Amino acid sequence: MRFLLTITYDGENFSGWQKQPGRRTVQGEIEKALFTALKEKITITGSGRTDAGVNAERQVAHFDCKQEITNLDRLAYSLNGILESDVKILSIEKSDIHARFSAKRKTYKYQMYLSKIVLPLKKKRLRIDNNIDIEMMKSCAKLLIGEHDFKNFCATNSQVESTIRRIYSCKFVKEDDNLDFYITGNGFLYKMVRNIVGLLIEVGKGKVKNTEFEQLAFGKKVLANKTVAGENLFLYEVKY
Amino acid sequence: MRFLLTITYDGENFSGWQKQPGRRTVQGEIEKALFTALKEKITITGSGRTDAGVNAERQVAHFDCKQEITNLDRLAYSLNGILESDVKILSIEKSDIHARFSAKRKTYKYQMYLSKIVLPLKKKRLRIDNNIDIEMMKSCAKLLIGEHDFKNFCATNSQVESTIRRIYSCKFVKEDDNLDFYITGNGFLYKMVRNIVGLLIEVGKGKVKNTEFEQLAFGKKVLANKTVAGENLFLYEVKY
Repeated sequence: MRFLLTITYDGENFSGWQKQPGRRTVQGEIEKALFTALKEKITITGSGRTDAGVNAERQVAHFDCKQEITNLDRLAYSLNGILESDVKILSIEKSDIHARFSAKRKTYKYQMYLSKIVLPLKKKRLRIDNNIDIEMMKSCAKLLIGEHDFKNFCATNSQVESTIRRIYSCKFVKEDDNLDFYITGNGFLYKMVRNIVGLLIEVGKGKVKNTEFEQLAFGKKVLANKTVAGENLFLYEVKY
Repeated sequence: MRFLLTITYDGENFSGWQKQPGRRTVQGEIEKALFTALKEKITITGSGRTDAGVNAERQVAHFDCKQEITNLDRLAYSLNGILESDVKILSIEKSDIHARFSAKRKTYKYQMYLSKIVLPLKKKRLRIDNNIDIEMMKSCAKLLIGEHDFKNFCATNSQVESTIRRIYSCKFVKEDDNLDFYITGNGFLYKMVRNIVGLLIEVGKGKVKNTEFEQLAFGKKVLANKTVAGENLFLYEVKY
């Protein structure tokens, strides 16, 4: 029987999603909790990995298990009792979906705030000087929409078959001094969102001209990536 | 010469506002930074104390000093360089105001969220079950407006001359699953906001009937206070 978990976590005290010996990871913690609850060794498959420090509003994972589970709400409740406060199960449902291969769209959110001064109460937000040109960032962000080769935004140590991805939408949402960037695509390369945000911030600062953006994004690579911190990044939604 | 500081801090790692020997306090840290920057022993007077764990979006304090300070932006910049990341100076201005005695209105904010499950990304928010009756809480909160004797909401170990205070406004603001309570008054007793929120939550849960609220709030005291945690409380604004 296959089940789909919807999971939320604060990435701060995790060495990312993927299970690694001797490290506290989201996958590892959930598999331990499942073993405690079901007395069965279970491997979960996430919609994708998240890096160390990266958070999830809604991550999705599936698992197959031998036993019948009738009361899924009760299992979720038990797992949440076992799990620490930085990772929780939002729901469990019966499903045939493969969390990774069936994922159609993913949305990430990157949180920033605009201020000349470090603001102690802005947690999990990257500070950006408030003289940044947001309109310029918006106009360059639009150029990302569509199918492109995103190899320039991909961490160099990454090994993937194809670096072509489709971006469906991206937007900046400003509310008071908070600035959130949302990006939805059919998939993302290793560090791709953080490198996109890094380049857009360079545009906003005027260090990269908007006329150079497309060349830097999709042309021959000439710039090292400005990877922004993972602690402000949130896997926001996975759609099937 | 007298100067007015506007200060913001995350209360998590402070033993409150007031200077105490051997403890890290907001007043203590700022006075240390002022001594480093100005080479003069300076005492600051806050608009009021905040308890251990309580945060401030905007706290106000004044100080008198012997020397002339011409570039106030530069002093703020220096202080922020000296201060750690959990307390920052938003502005410094020349003023004759007494931060405590001249304060006309203070606003506090208490942050909650509505969910059956602990949500790891909801920091500095009290979780409340989402079946709570917010309309009932709103209707009881209105009864607080005006001049009342708030002694029932005052911590018993507090010694004050008068327990009469005037509340100008209070409101609940719900946005998605976040619920914020704002309360503005001419002053607040020790733990008064946290005890008010505690009683309003009892009303929302149906444990205290709305018809009992006024009696419990302003009548002969019959209930022990349900003091909610300080970490979700924010001194939001001080007006002069």
